[in-house]
Amino acid sequence: MRKKISSSRTPGRPAASEERGARELLLNAATELFAVQGVAGTTFAMIAKRAGLTPAMLHYYFRDRNELLDVVVEERLLLLITRVWAKVEADADPAETVRGIVQRLLDGIEAMPWVPSAWMREILNEGGLLRERIVRRLPYAKVRLLGESLAQGQAKGTVNRDVDPLLAVFSVIGMVMLHMATIRFWSEAFDRQPPSRPQVERHIVGLVLNGLQGSAPARAKHKKR
Amino acid sequence: MRKKISSSRTPGRPAASEERGARELLLNAATELFAVQGVAGTTFAMIAKRAGLTPAMLHYYFRDRNELLDVVVEERLLLLITRVWAKVEADADPAETVRGIVQRLLDGIEAMPWVPSAWMREILNEGGLLRERIVRRLPYAKVRLLGESLAQGQAKGTVNRDVDPLLAVFSVIGMVMLHMATIRFWSEAFDRQPPSRPQVERHIVGLVLNGLQGSAPARAKHKKR
Repeated sequence: MRKKISSSRTPGRPAASEERGARELLLNAATELFAVQGVAGTTFAMIAKRAGLTPAMLHYYFRDRNELLDVVVEERLLLLITRVWAKVEADADPAETVRGIVQRLLDGIEAMPWVPSAWMREILNEGGLLRERIVRRLPYAKVRLLGESLAQGQAKGTVNRDVDPLLAVFSVIGMVMLHMATIRFWSEAFDRQPPSRPQVERHIVGLVLNGLQGSAPARAKHKKR
Repeated sequence: MRKKISSSRTPGRPAASEERGARELLLNAATELFAVQGVAGTTFAMIAKRAGLTPAMLHYYFRDRNELLDVVVEERLLLLITRVWAKVEADADPAETVRGIVQRLLDGIEAMPWVPSAWMREILNEGGLLRERIVRRLPYAKVRLLGESLAQGQAKGTVNRDVDPLLAVFSVIGMVMLHMATIRFWSEAFDRQPPSRPQVERHIVGLVLNGLQGSAPARAKHKKR
């Protein structure tokens, strides 16, 4: 897939029509490598090689690693975060909200399978190289909204009173990321076929919604899919 | 805390009475650094410095990094794993088994606070440097035992039929590790006091046991603490 650079153009500078495709290729290659070997272990040369393009091309689009990381956060991770949280609103049924978050997060991971590993490696880890960039952009207001609606559910008895409402939001996100980051590892360890998307979704939604549920009403409603 | 090596002994070789203490110091320093900056980013010089001992001392106890990692796995991680799983038996109530696992794992993490980060960074991550060493030593038989007892619970209606019994074991371990690895990160992000051990335990046990519970009997029993 290596592109030939014609001699009439500046080396490393692609034709306008190629721009979009080449930039996407490079971003995809970068994120995939970040997930497998970490940001620190990934050089520009590796990214260019994986994309089948020249390092000059990579430098044309991204001045340095800082700029590349800014773009990964801006155009990939924040896009996903925004999609996952956009529909979270006050006064919604928290169980339905949690179900929606799990589904949209799984959708996002289907499109960007590198996300869960990158999340564990580069965001949660101390010293993770996307951590600072992401932490200041998290959708705190939305998270608090869901936390509050869980707390209101606890007051009404529809949400499990043992859980910490704000910690629970992280439990839900974490459960999805953790399982998706390790599904292959786990399947190999137990010599099983990796579970399909519907199987993972059923497991996580089932465990989490049942877990969040209080002893009061609405049991049947939350159990049904 | 730098120890003076008397000139009558081989350099780097401690008196027998110091051995135990120095070796422990070095192992503690190593594991703490591994959790914060990863195994790959931790040199022998850093470990010696943190322990307040000389690199020669470190080399006296551990020939090279491979040997050091073998010892970390053997004397620390496997010890924890064995303690957590020792009491898991066939025909036990799966809810009580899960509660016991969560408690013993939290006990182990209290004694070795570096474990959750190391688990995420060096065991779950592809390319993690403890991964191979641990994967072949996991207590598969015990995990399957708990998986089977959850499956039997599903047949009886006491365990949530939406969950995958074997995946659920990983959900439980993962929930503990994930929360414990990120409790400081999370508290800072939401500007809260880090939850205490009893608070975290109540949250995790509450969420997970409620989540695993079926719609049939024994609700009150499992809800009570």
